Amino acid sequence: MDDLTDFGTALVESELIYPTGVAGVSGRSQQYAAVARALHDLADQWGTELGATSIEFPPIVNRSTFARTNYIQSFPDLIGVVSVFTGDDRDHAELLRRSEAGKDWQDLLEPAEVFLASAACHPVYPMCTGSLPAGGRYFNVHSFCFRHEPSTDPARSQAFQMHELVFIGTPEEAQRHRDAGLEHGVSLLRQLGLDMTVVEANDPFFGRLGTAMANNQKDEILKLEGTTPIGSSDHPVAIISGNCHRDHFGEPFAITSADGATAHSACVAFGVDRITLALFWKHGLDVDKWPSEVAATLWP
Amino acid sequence: MDDLTDFGTALVESELIYPTGVAGVSGRSQQYAAVARALHDLADQWGTELGATSIEFPPIVNRSTFARTNYIQSFPDLIGVVSVFTGDDRDHAELLRRSEAGKDWQDLLEPAEVFLASAACHPVYPMCTGSLPAGGRYFNVHSFCFRHEPSTDPARSQAFQMHELVFIGTPEEAQRHRDAGLEHGVSLLRQLGLDMTVVEANDPFFGRLGTAMANNQKDEILKLEGTTPIGSSDHPVAIISGNCHRDHFGEPFAITSADGATAHSACVAFGVDRITLALFWKHGLDVDKWPSEVAATLWP
Repeated sequence: MDDLTDFGTALVESELIYPTGVAGVSGRSQQYAAVARALHDLADQWGTELGATSIEFPPIVNRSTFARTNYIQSFPDLIGVVSVFTGDDRDHAELLRRSEAGKDWQDLLEPAEVFLASAACHPVYPMCTGSLPAGGRYFNVHSFCFRHEPSTDPARSQAFQMHELVFIGTPEEAQRHRDAGLEHGVSLLRQLGLDMTVVEANDPFFGRLGTAMANNQKDEILKLEGTTPIGSSDHPVAIISGNCHRDHFGEPFAITSADGATAHSACVAFGVDRITLALFWKHGLDVDKWPSEVAATLWP
Repeated sequence: MDDLTDFGTALVESELIYPTGVAGVSGRSQQYAAVARALHDLADQWGTELGATSIEFPPIVNRSTFARTNYIQSFPDLIGVVSVFTGDDRDHAELLRRSEAGKDWQDLLEPAEVFLASAACHPVYPMCTGSLPAGGRYFNVHSFCFRHEPSTDPARSQAFQMHELVFIGTPEEAQRHRDAGLEHGVSLLRQLGLDMTVVEANDPFFGRLGTAMANNQKDEILKLEGTTPIGSSDHPVAIISGNCHRDHFGEPFAITSADGATAHSACVAFGVDRITLALFWKHGLDVDKWPSEVAATLWP
């Protein structure tokens, strides 16, 4: 089995994932969910060691928070916009009429107070508006995220679980968290038997504006990724990233470090679903046959 | 403490939940999440006893699946419609221009292939299209669900976790699952020390059309709910429901039972977040001080 499609088929046939008819939107079996949960636990354990505030966020995020993250500027093609129906009986009748005729009824809706979450960490920044304590703050957060990139690659989901260790404080502290944190995270993944390669990230910033941002990301080595093959030996996939945000969040959310300067932030982000898939790819589809040291790390 | 607002404030002050600035959209602490997880485990355990197929679904559902559930007919005011941006550089510039000017940019988007999930069970019905085995099929499913009903009542979330034990088979089998299953579920909740009252449900079907559906639901006793106080002793809240769907899903999803007739379905649904809150309300905000028999049931 050394083909992406074969791996996707095997995941479905062994009932580890259940397709729902939309590319990248699948249900997860109990066995799959148990692996993902163990990965959340490993990250939580690390969060506890860091003294982090641990929060599970829902899959939707405050509209005004989302607007301030600038995600719409950088990745408009990935966002999920939510709208709701606030009309009366007549509007509802019109909505149903159009829906049954296969016509658009988007204009009968109102923008919701929320967007679909694009990253687990976005809700922590408004919680930090104001002055941080000396030494900054750590957050250990996770949520389901949405990114609109339909694909038959099993490692590219539209709905996936992200688990992040976030730090907010001085520029030096933030850089240190990114560097030491990514190293720690990668070593955790190596303990799980995964072959890890650390590379500079190349995020798909959108359009002409995006080219400059992508160049800047690369020039300043703002984001590193740990990759491992999933589904094919020549298909390395980023399963963890370490990201220096600089003042990308500190500035719009008016966060200052203890010295009064605009705070910097950084995160180490685990792609929980991708790590789960990488483990199935590396160790086989039957968890009971995984190497005992891998099982012992996941379920200590 | 016998006031809804006091309870909400206490949950926030004790850092069990983290408001995000949108009513009914909150983060959950590690302690809160541990209780919710234990409840999922109890439901999973029951699912295993029933021989159910266990699936965790993402918070979004196939658009065509959702359309066939008729949810848009019954509860249009609760749905979350997702749209995405598929435009080019020029469209993006226009989007940003309007967004910065506080103007609507909804018409620059396209409907997504998904809706926000309104119930955990919806994705199982297309999986059953065709003929069921004798004895029908059980599913044990959970997901984050969205319902647009912003409220300051801590028990009314816009994003919440639902865990359902679903049966699909003959009308008699489905009715039996609803009746025996609800009884089993309610007895589980009583074991957790909750005072439970079973009442006929009164779902908020929308508009004029909805009045007839609500009457039918009541006349035929299609849905029962187990309620318990949350946040105030005179504020009973439904934390579990038992629902006879009749052929509401069997018909549009073309599911037949082994005898060739249109399948009926039924579910017992746990409102995991509401049960979690009910436990905090009943036993106090510090899990370590909960009665030992409650802790032993949650963490055997």
